[in-house]
Amino acid sequence: MIENSPLESVKSQINVEFDNSNQAKIIYDSIILEFQTAPDYRSSMDLTLKDNFIIIDIDAQDSTSFRASVNSAIKWINLSLQINNLTNI
Amino acid sequence: MIENSPLESVKSQINVEFDNSNQAKIIYDSIILEFQTAPDYRSSMDLTLKDNFIIIDIDAQDSTSFRASVNSAIKWINLSLQINNLTNI
Repeated sequence: MIENSPLESVKSQINVEFDNSNQAKIIYDSIILEFQTAPDYRSSMDLTLKDNFIIIDIDAQDSTSFRASVNSAIKWINLSLQINNLTNI
Repeated sequence: MIENSPLESVKSQINVEFDNSNQAKIIYDSIILEFQTAPDYRSSMDLTLKDNFIIIDIDAQDSTSFRASVNSAIKWINLSLQINNLTNI
């Protein structure tokens, strides 16, 4: 039988750059609760704010949960950004 | 209008751990050509082999191309691993 995710582990640090540190702070405050409460036992995520960067640390047991974590994180950030941009129109 | 990908840039280093350095080398040799020839102008990927780790560096202009790059990279690695595991049965 072929294993679905035969990797040992996948670790990643993702640096997301924003226009300015104020925008990064707004997005960080919007999504930090999602990261703290996301119930995923095969991967853990950590969020850090640094100037105009949000740093996402992902530590996953397999590639499937890694992809799920990346996709969730990016979707949360994009959604928050789009809502924030609506208020600036 | 809402921008689809309003991020400035997304940079990431992904560390994929394998059972042993031999397996990592086999997978690295199998997929390095895909990384060198992938025609994506909005993101660049770099692959490095280090012991039993394959390190993927992704530098993307927006979150959409970042997700596409992550998904491609993980799929190539998984496919190579599955084919390699077939020969070990």
